[in-house]
Amino acid sequence: MPSTIAQSINNKVFPDATVAAINEAVQKGHNAFLLYRNFSGVAKANFLEAIADGIEYERSVLLTTAMKETFLAEARLNGEITRTINQIKLFADLLKKGSWVNAIIDEAQPERKPLPKPDIRQMQKPIGVVTVFGASNFPFAFSTAGGDTISALASGCAVVYKAHPAHPQLSEQVAKIIIEAAQKINMPAGIFSMIHAAAIEPALELVQHPLIKAIAFTGSFKAGRSIYDAAAKREEPIPVYAEMGSINPVFILPEILQHRGDEIAKSLAASNLLSTGQFCTNPGIIIANESTDRENFQNVFLASIVNANGETMLTDSILNSYNQHTKKLAASDEVKLLGKGNKMGKQNTAEPCMFSVSADAFISNHELHEEVFGPASLHVTAMNKDDMMKIAASLKGQLTITIWGTENDITEYNELINYLELKAGRIIINGVPTGVEVTHAMMHGGPYPATTDSKFTSVGTTSIYRFTRPVCYQNFDNKFLPQELQNENSLNIVRMINGEYTTNNID
Amino acid sequence: MPSTIAQSINNKVFPDATVAAINEAVQKGHNAFLLYRNFSGVAKANFLEAIADGIEYERSVLLTTAMKETFLAEARLNGEITRTINQIKLFADLLKKGSWVNAIIDEAQPERKPLPKPDIRQMQKPIGVVTVFGASNFPFAFSTAGGDTISALASGCAVVYKAHPAHPQLSEQVAKIIIEAAQKINMPAGIFSMIHAAAIEPALELVQHPLIKAIAFTGSFKAGRSIYDAAAKREEPIPVYAEMGSINPVFILPEILQHRGDEIAKSLAASNLLSTGQFCTNPGIIIANESTDRENFQNVFLASIVNANGETMLTDSILNSYNQHTKKLAASDEVKLLGKGNKMGKQNTAEPCMFSVSADAFISNHELHEEVFGPASLHVTAMNKDDMMKIAASLKGQLTITIWGTENDITEYNELINYLELKAGRIIINGVPTGVEVTHAMMHGGPYPATTDSKFTSVGTTSIYRFTRPVCYQNFDNKFLPQELQNENSLNIVRMINGEYTTNNID
Repeated sequence: MPSTIAQSINNKVFPDATVAAINEAVQKGHNAFLLYRNFSGVAKANFLEAIADGIEYERSVLLTTAMKETFLAEARLNGEITRTINQIKLFADLLKKGSWVNAIIDEAQPERKPLPKPDIRQMQKPIGVVTVFGASNFPFAFSTAGGDTISALASGCAVVYKAHPAHPQLSEQVAKIIIEAAQKINMPAGIFSMIHAAAIEPALELVQHPLIKAIAFTGSFKAGRSIYDAAAKREEPIPVYAEMGSINPVFILPEILQHRGDEIAKSLAASNLLSTGQFCTNPGIIIANESTDRENFQNVFLASIVNANGETMLTDSILNSYNQHTKKLAASDEVKLLGKGNKMGKQNTAEPCMFSVSADAFISNHELHEEVFGPASLHVTAMNKDDMMKIAASLKGQLTITIWGTENDITEYNELINYLELKAGRIIINGVPTGVEVTHAMMHGGPYPATTDSKFTSVGTTSIYRFTRPVCYQNFDNKFLPQELQNENSLNIVRMINGEYTTNNID
Repeated sequence: MPSTIAQSINNKVFPDATVAAINEAVQKGHNAFLLYRNFSGVAKANFLEAIADGIEYERSVLLTTAMKETFLAEARLNGEITRTINQIKLFADLLKKGSWVNAIIDEAQPERKPLPKPDIRQMQKPIGVVTVFGASNFPFAFSTAGGDTISALASGCAVVYKAHPAHPQLSEQVAKIIIEAAQKINMPAGIFSMIHAAAIEPALELVQHPLIKAIAFTGSFKAGRSIYDAAAKREEPIPVYAEMGSINPVFILPEILQHRGDEIAKSLAASNLLSTGQFCTNPGIIIANESTDRENFQNVFLASIVNANGETMLTDSILNSYNQHTKKLAASDEVKLLGKGNKMGKQNTAEPCMFSVSADAFISNHELHEEVFGPASLHVTAMNKDDMMKIAASLKGQLTITIWGTENDITEYNELINYLELKAGRIIINGVPTGVEVTHAMMHGGPYPATTDSKFTSVGTTSIYRFTRPVCYQNFDNKFLPQELQNENSLNIVRMINGEYTTNNID
């Protein structure tokens, strides 16, 4: 079968959606939701699998478009397609297993005194039409058929997706795959639709639509906060799951620095440079106590940076922002520019940068805590454990915090590590923060300003709960209950019955 | 042992807390949290049980104070004390069992290609200092040692409690019990503290304090929304769990109305009059199709209302608000006053009221969808199933929606009942909405404006998750993990390991 999406690869311009088009997409999404929310887990899983199959079938076309629009490397994009397909299949699997609905059953006690206890059952149910804002830096995994869209569709919600203007043609192609998959297996029309909007107004129109019940967003702090503010001002405020990035501090403890400094420096520099630093988990702040080991570490790290090529960033505005941030850092009295990359001397590319600063200056200067999106790192020199505690206390909320340490280090700095839990969604020991596993236990989120809602992740199966709420059924006849809550556990899911987890039926 | 709280029963005036006192309470709470968050589940359970024991020990003193301050009946208050104690013990039990932390473990796959999979583990962790606003209508169960305070303490958070000005002496007494319990078993000083504030300013000072990480509130829509707005405007926005009440619609379907109309009328009228209608789950809207059965039902309901006595409400302002609302309803052209209670002719008491209105008028007049806090009901006359669907579509978010129906009714109105799920946290069949079970499956919450966060309940064990967030541990040595996430499942809790629920150890 030939590709059905290839013909859309051209330099077509995608004008911003009109208010009428937005209203139509949302209304159609709502109508589709009213049907789709009652579909079985298997039916929804079939839909997701049809999307995954469609992406696999069109892989080479998608790859070509993505390379053209994002400037990211082929291997990276190909890996991201695989990750996206696996992510979709993971959600399909979650739906087929079915236990994700968190069924809780408390049986009636008709004989209880002074009053009988009624039968009460609860499960997670989808909330309505969700708006997803695509990200520039993950054209597959955080875009049209990315984790936000897929977890929302898995939950039983409809999606109105706002394409990122950095890759509109790819967005069109993936949207077509989703819509064709929906048609092929008779999903209600409008369950997924896409709009384009480079300007802020159409985006806010979506955020303010009364039938939109939640927003998922990955992008800059400024855009994320303005969406949050607009949603909070609605007559009916709605949740905003904005993942706004992070400086991802890395603490390197003394003993491991002594023994494995070179290896850690190479590993962290590679993580910092990966995809031209365009990851929200990019390690931007490296903290170590002053010592000759630290100096050695810094020299090895520096060698990686100065030998790195400048590469094209996702968009001109991201490059401009990166250049402004790095220029400002270089001009600061407190900050020292240790070195720059771009030995190929390419034009219009990001120059990798490495800076250093004292602990005191880092702690007191809040501007140094702002994310620099790109291949830059700021190396903070502490004098001792006490300095590290003060640095930890000064940190705002993060997606990740990494600690490198030997067993002795971790024991000696136990208080620091315990404290750092308060500042991040994910704590990593002896690893790099880039590379976010799509799995059950992943937490890709964290305290503000890393996200606007620290309770939820945008990666991993628990991200589905962003789009559901518990509904409680009291005193229902068994046959009128949702299948998941009926006495006979016909779906064989894990349920909490009278406080105990079980797959048993109720007699 | 004599009562240690009795001496505080006097007519002492409680001035609003100063900014300095608020800051001190929050800072002490934060310091206490930094220690308390690491305490074991058993240690926290012991704290809760000491609170429960203290309340039981002082039951008679507390009862006397509560009766004096709230005008609620002795039996009701005594029952509420029992419920509050049972609620505290339920949370202690939850902590001792330990599985509530939702431990999720995905084991490493070092051989995975192209990259090894790291070990990733996740569990729920407390967020910091929480502010709880006490409610006027539940001086025990939603006040000082009520569900909000107890679920926050159970989660591992510290609490700064704002007493409701309707029962300051009782609040002082219960706060003393909590603080003494904390001292007795060596909980960190400041883990719980209380402030008084009749004015809005000290309350907002609390909402805006940077160390406050969440708010729990039960009360009016106006106050709840203003707290939500203030929290959303913070530099770091924080979650607000405001339970703001509801009109709790009741749909009575034709066949059951024919067979059991009298019984349902008596049951619903009793629910409407309970505690002078001062429940957020009070059935305020009764919907039935026009028929002689409906007329009979209405007459039986009316007999209960006109024979009911006027009773003293919790506060003068609640009585004033009730009188304003019922006067406005009585003055409306569209609404008919069917009858009033208060045959004893008591002064300064709420007169039970019963009103009727057509479906069309109810649907088009949004003012009729506002909560009337007190013993009033509005009876909406539908003509058919289609009218009921339109009424359902016009409803805002509710805590509860009740349906009375026979098996035939429920089958015939299946579409209505399925749709009503979108509008409420709890759907009740053939029962009354008052009486909120404290159990695992309870959902006491619902779509806006019933609450500001439809994902969470303020009653039942899952209310603990309002005060936690997931923290993810990547590549930790087993011995440095929290006990709940270590390979050996020494706490014998249920964990999700590689996608399966189990109590097994990891080899």
